[in-house]
Amino acid sequence: MFTFKVDAEIELQLFQLQDCKRLYHLVNTNRNHLRDWLPWVDDMSSHYQYETIIPMWLKQFADNNGFNTGILYHRELVGAIGFHYIDWRNKHTSIGYYLAKNAEGNGIMTRSVQALLNYAFIDLGLNRVEIRCGEGNSKSRAIPERLGFTIEGRIRDGEFLYNKPHDLIVYGMLARDWNRKL
Amino acid sequence: MFTFKVDAEIELQLFQLQDCKRLYHLVNTNRNHLRDWLPWVDDMSSHYQYETIIPMWLKQFADNNGFNTGILYHRELVGAIGFHYIDWRNKHTSIGYYLAKNAEGNGIMTRSVQALLNYAFIDLGLNRVEIRCGEGNSKSRAIPERLGFTIEGRIRDGEFLYNKPHDLIVYGMLARDWNRKL
Amino acid sequence: MFTFKVDAEIELQLFQLQDCKRLYHLVNTNRNHLRDWLPWVDDMSSHYQYETIIPMWLKQFADNNGFNTGILYHRELVGAIGFHYIDWRNKHTSIGYYLAKNAEGNGIMTRSVQALLNYAFIDLGLNRVEIRCGEGNSKSRAIPERLGFTIEGRIRDGEFLYNKPHDLIVYGMLARDWNRKL
Amino acid sequence: MFTFKVDAEIELQLFQLQDCKRLYHLVNTNRNHLRDWLPWVDDMSSHYQYETIIPMWLKQFADNNGFNTGILYHRELVGAIGFHYIDWRNKHTSIGYYLAKNAEGNGIMTRSVQALLNYAFIDLGLNRVEIRCGEGNSKSRAIPERLGFTIEGRIRDGEFLYNKPHDLIVYGMLARDWNRKL
Amino acid sequence: MFTFKVDAEIELQLFQLQDCKRLYHLVNTNRNHLRDWLPWVDDMSSHYQYETIIPMWLKQFADNNGFNTGILYHRELVGAIGFHYIDWRNKHTSIGYYLAKNAEGNGIMTRSVQALLNYAFIDLGLNRVEIRCGEGNSKSRAIPERLGFTIEGRIRDGEFLYNKPHDLIVYGMLARDWNRKL
Amino acid sequence: MFTFKVDAEIELQLFQLQDCKRLYHLVNTNRNHLRDWLPWVDDMSSHYQYETIIPMWLKQFADNNGFNTGILYHRELVGAIGFHYIDWRNKHTSIGYYLAKNAEGNGIMTRSVQALLNYAFIDLGLNRVEIRCGEGNSKSRAIPERLGFTIEGRIRDGEFLYNKPHDLIVYGMLARDWNRKL
Repeated sequence: MFTFKVDAEIELQLFQLQDCKRLYHLVNTNRNHLRDWLPWVDDMSSHYQYETIIPMWLKQFADNNGFNTGILYHRELVGAIGFHYIDWRNKHTSIGYYLAKNAEGNGIMTRSVQALLNYAFIDLGLNRVEIRCGEGNSKSRAIPERLGFTIEGRIRDGEFLYNKPHDLIVYGMLARDWNRKL
Repeated sequence: MFTFKVDAEIELQLFQLQDCKRLYHLVNTNRNHLRDWLPWVDDMSSHYQYETIIPMWLKQFADNNGFNTGILYHRELVGAIGFHYIDWRNKHTSIGYYLAKNAEGNGIMTRSVQALLNYAFIDLGLNRVEIRCGEGNSKSRAIPERLGFTIEGRIRDGEFLYNKPHDLIVYGMLARDWNRKL
Repeated sequence: MFTFKVDAEIELQLFQLQDCKRLYHLVNTNRNHLRDWLPWVDDMSSHYQYETIIPMWLKQFADNNGFNTGILYHRELVGAIGFHYIDWRNKHTSIGYYLAKNAEGNGIMTRSVQALLNYAFIDLGLNRVEIRCGEGNSKSRAIPERLGFTIEGRIRDGEFLYNKPHDLIVYGMLARDWNRKL
Repeated sequence: MFTFKVDAEIELQLFQLQDCKRLYHLVNTNRNHLRDWLPWVDDMSSHYQYETIIPMWLKQFADNNGFNTGILYHRELVGAIGFHYIDWRNKHTSIGYYLAKNAEGNGIMTRSVQALLNYAFIDLGLNRVEIRCGEGNSKSRAIPERLGFTIEGRIRDGEFLYNKPHDLIVYGMLARDWNRKL
Repeated sequence: MFTFKVDAEIELQLFQLQDCKRLYHLVNTNRNHLRDWLPWVDDMSSHYQYETIIPMWLKQFADNNGFNTGILYHRELVGAIGFHYIDWRNKHTSIGYYLAKNAEGNGIMTRSVQALLNYAFIDLGLNRVEIRCGEGNSKSRAIPERLGFTIEGRIRDGEFLYNKPHDLIVYGMLARDWNRKL
Repeated sequence: MFTFKVDAEIELQLFQLQDCKRLYHLVNTNRNHLRDWLPWVDDMSSHYQYETIIPMWLKQFADNNGFNTGILYHRELVGAIGFHYIDWRNKHTSIGYYLAKNAEGNGIMTRSVQALLNYAFIDLGLNRVEIRCGEGNSKSRAIPERLGFTIEGRIRDGEFLYNKPHDLIVYGMLARDWNRKL
């Protein structure tokens, strides 16, 4: 129902209970594609699971501690993006996202992240935004690299994916860097 | 951040903690106007009060039990509108709203209610939407009357306003009536 | 254990966990009779369900927001009656009730409602009591009509009964009307 | 509102929020008398304190874990009595009580405890009821002694009263003993 | 992980989630021995049950209201001991314990209780410690008797063990008595 | 009461409510020293604040999600150390610590961290432990460097200290590296 407009083609829609089936469908039809880098994909076996997950996301939003949205491209659900948390004391957040296979190649994620950066730095007054990508996840890494993030570190064994650890690359963007670009 | 688009001029924005000051300003500058029919206006004496109220509205939204939004007219906050609750068992909801004095006369509320009716009947599959107005509140009553609601009753002493009771007019719109109009 | 005395024949007993079987027995033996107008009857399939329902009623009572009691007629459980909520700000409440088939015709419900009206207006200082009945539920409607309630409205499709909506008649009684009768 | 009838003169009324002032008045006018053996009397300085205490008692009741009632003698509040807890696993409870100075000498407490013993053993199926009295509290001790309780122990320093410990006498009554008396 | 050192041989280790299997193993291999006097033994049928029980014990500890620890004898889990509650108002607590069959006869429990008495009286400033034993549980009763506790009472039918009640002996130790011994 | 033994000189004691004054004293007498790198020091103005903070740490411990302990050096409280969280899915945790000025130079922190690394890798089966230090905090950085941690990144503006951001150095230790050292 409620959306954050990125541009004429893209909107980010706050997930609501009404979206359980649609969201599960997205994950289910992209299962092989998504499980390469998302540790929770194999756990999802029914749209009913989203009936408890979506209210948790909305409570996180109610607590002013981040949110999760569906990416609508020409009104069709093609991915998800959100703030994992908001650390108000240290003025930073972290962005996570994924995209359906068949929606790749349209600059959807780059434009979505760009819009959230503007929101984070300008509307919320945050100072820092982080993106963490699996080292070998070149498609995901392309986003912060295209947007001019700085590589700040490599967290060894930072995440387990189906019982195997892999390294995470930490990308950081600061408000002062972003403003220079604008 | 997140909005429900009514038309080119009007958006309904989910209230977030970032909106406390802006919302208090709206209420405060329309105090005399609003207190005529809203029992809680005199209780509001600081924008800090919204720091506990807005999270409660968002938790209500997270519980799939209604919401409260700010009405943006040409991007400026001029009023509020929402669903008081959603009774899923009986498939009905109730709409409440108020508007700043200086925004009256532009059809803002009629268009906003209209958009929420479409959302309630089409997207949520509800069967009935109710609006209750103070009997003497002619401006508020004009909205459901213009939209073709049916007067279904007069609740005697239905509400207290600063220690004086007054009657409430119950307006109802059913999905089948609304669909006929479309 | 704890009762509100209506008269020499009738007591209203606050339901406790000890009453689960007795209450389920009442509902179960009046299933066909009750399901005509009570939407929850078909959901009740075991006395164990009352082990979670009765504590919820008692918590509602603890919150000063209404209660649910069993109607004892000559010490036998023959029905239930209660306040659905208490709206302290607007000083009103709403009464709900049902009666076993074989207890009808003794004026039990009229006397019980009468006693609760006195309690609401005199002890609690409320201003308004409402009763809502299905339009075709003539036995239920006879109670507020006999007691002099005013018909204030007809809520179209106000309630769903096993997937079919029906209209609700709103009856209202105000403190000043009741006092005149006494 | 809800009472447990002891006999023609005495009722035990479940405390509700409406009773705050009446209960505080009882405690306040018997302050010197009650503080001799009740450790919380000096803490009570306003009827507002009961606005949080009474809901806690009612939640205890909702949890099926005891209750607290006002003793009404000829409809006037003269004391309090209740079950501190109900240990369902071991089938026992403990009774506590106090009485206004000017209500002493009428057998009010003896009859009230007697009624609660019947309720505990017959209605709830408990096996054991305990009463603990300060060793020097002869008026309180007279109750279990008159009713045939057995002295089962002396808990040394069992309770602190305004920073001084004193011994508690444990009185016990078993279902089989009580039934023999009936 | 965290232990309270009794002496060179004995430590009391706060149970953590990591201990579920080890604790269940202790109970399971001592089932016949323990069920003689512990009412909950037959309820334990899997180490998974401890995944909800241990967090409850730790929350009790977080609330400063007692704790439950494993008794380690030469680093092996041989029993459990703890404070059932801490009554800060009346400055007393109650100790409960049990020991594996094959660890008996080493003075383990006597030394453990002794250490907790020192902790209760000296570190926490409590005034009274209680131990309750089944009347016929001679091994358990030997502990407080060896340590000089006073028999203060016999609670008739104080506990049910697999549907049969038995009497409990109350042993008490006061700070002033304990200090005299030191 | 409960401690984790590091060696003959050092113990890590789980903070309990009894430690409020002692902990506040530590912070208060090291205020100037600690505020250089700890953002919360200026917020601490009374030992009463720890009456809500310590139960929160213990609830975190009860949730199996980390802990906070006092470092006892020859039984005297000289610092604090703990796990900020435990990420069981990805098998990692993060260690935080601080030390009193006058306890520096004894290898206390190095030995404490060493002991917690053993606990994390061997007892809990974690795979990764992280330490984050302010870039200019040479004393803090000496600990992971001495223990052979790897510098994995520099989080720009990772933390705000009294309204000024500074960079954080991320140090990581993996189980396989640690085991090689043992």
